[in-house]
Amino acid sequence: MSVVLYELAGRDPDRPFSPHCWKTRLALMHKGIGFETRSIPFTRIPDIEGGSKIVPVLRDGNRVVSDSFEIAEYLDEAYPDAPSLFAGEGGRQLSRFVETWSSTTIHPAIAKFAIMDIFNLLGDEDRDYFRQSREAAFGRPLEEVQNRDEAAVQAFLASLMPLRGLLKRQPYLGGEAPLFADHIIFGAFQWLRVVSGFDPLPKEDPVAVWFDRCLELYDAHGRSVSKAA
Amino acid sequence: MSVVLYELAGRDPDRPFSPHCWKTRLALMHKGIGFETRSIPFTRIPDIEGGSKIVPVLRDGNRVVSDSFEIAEYLDEAYPDAPSLFAGEGGRQLSRFVETWSSTTIHPAIAKFAIMDIFNLLGDEDRDYFRQSREAAFGRPLEEVQNRDEAAVQAFLASLMPLRGLLKRQPYLGGEAPLFADHIIFGAFQWLRVVSGFDPLPKEDPVAVWFDRCLELYDAHGRSVSKAA
Repeated sequence: MSVVLYELAGRDPDRPFSPHCWKTRLALMHKGIGFETRSIPFTRIPDIEGGSKIVPVLRDGNRVVSDSFEIAEYLDEAYPDAPSLFAGEGGRQLSRFVETWSSTTIHPAIAKFAIMDIFNLLGDEDRDYFRQSREAAFGRPLEEVQNRDEAAVQAFLASLMPLRGLLKRQPYLGGEAPLFADHIIFGAFQWLRVVSGFDPLPKEDPVAVWFDRCLELYDAHGRSVSKAA
Repeated sequence: MSVVLYELAGRDPDRPFSPHCWKTRLALMHKGIGFETRSIPFTRIPDIEGGSKIVPVLRDGNRVVSDSFEIAEYLDEAYPDAPSLFAGEGGRQLSRFVETWSSTTIHPAIAKFAIMDIFNLLGDEDRDYFRQSREAAFGRPLEEVQNRDEAAVQAFLASLMPLRGLLKRQPYLGGEAPLFADHIIFGAFQWLRVVSGFDPLPKEDPVAVWFDRCLELYDAHGRSVSKAA
């Protein structure tokens, strides 16, 4: 039985957009593990494999694992002969710092840049859920959350300084070759790329250059879904 | 011949304060390597071992290494049987991300909180150099650089979110035990602790709890220099 990845999608099942699911896609490609995907709307996540709170969910034979980080840990344990996602225990631990950095720095900014784009690509079944849950979280109508003004863009670019500083000295977070730490941050930028035509990164920004490099990885898997118009 | 660490000091040679030198102190303790220290003022760094631009500098037998990160790499290579500072190649690479995060997020904030404290602890020989170089960098008199107002403190605490998020789930950046990644960020907070009585961290902040935990490491080496009054 092949490996199955359950991932979030909107109206178009061929445009997966969840940052966390993209992390897992790249992790599977990195390990050289073939997989099928099943597209799931937000409101049907609880139906996955008899009950899940989150995506991605991975089924590998009899084993079901959810959460992108735990899936990466599972893959490195279950497939030790394939290229490592962490390159050792220190890499595994410090990937958690990259994850918290990405989820507290990049994710909130992207959500504000593109929340209406996300809303607009959802299927009808998800729209009420998405609007209600996000408006409760932000305390404002979705239409007022989205903000792409110059100050927001500049603050975002400034917040990327630690990543930019690193990528000036090495091609990947993982050094000369990518690791799961790269997939973690790739997932965030790919989320924006798939949902929105808006792109806050100047082309010459080392972060943009790195993201382009990541789009080419694993037979340009990231480009298998086109940039949103 | 024993290992010698050249480190920055002000008027009091027993109060080393450079964040980078503290990283190396903890790295040496972590490896269980005995060392002697030589205190050097800013303006005599070029005299170290026949020429250096930075501290720390480590002499180990015939080998001289400068830069705290390169020293950590050297120590892990030269003393492979002692506890690792990186726990694998992935840990070594991602420690660079921790370094850029700390130097772009924590260091500038601490410099602004305590620049007059630093100036005041310097020996006479360093004061002109320090004032001129820092005023050129900040474009203002030192007295106007220092800023501890509530907005600056709140911005600093907010910038620590990625670290705080991680430390809510694990005791060290390295997981259950410290790695050089912990020493990197420890160095920044120890710099502030040694130079200044000012402390922006609430006692219950997970970052403060972690820093206290690091002060206890290696026979409480970090407490061998008292907190500034």
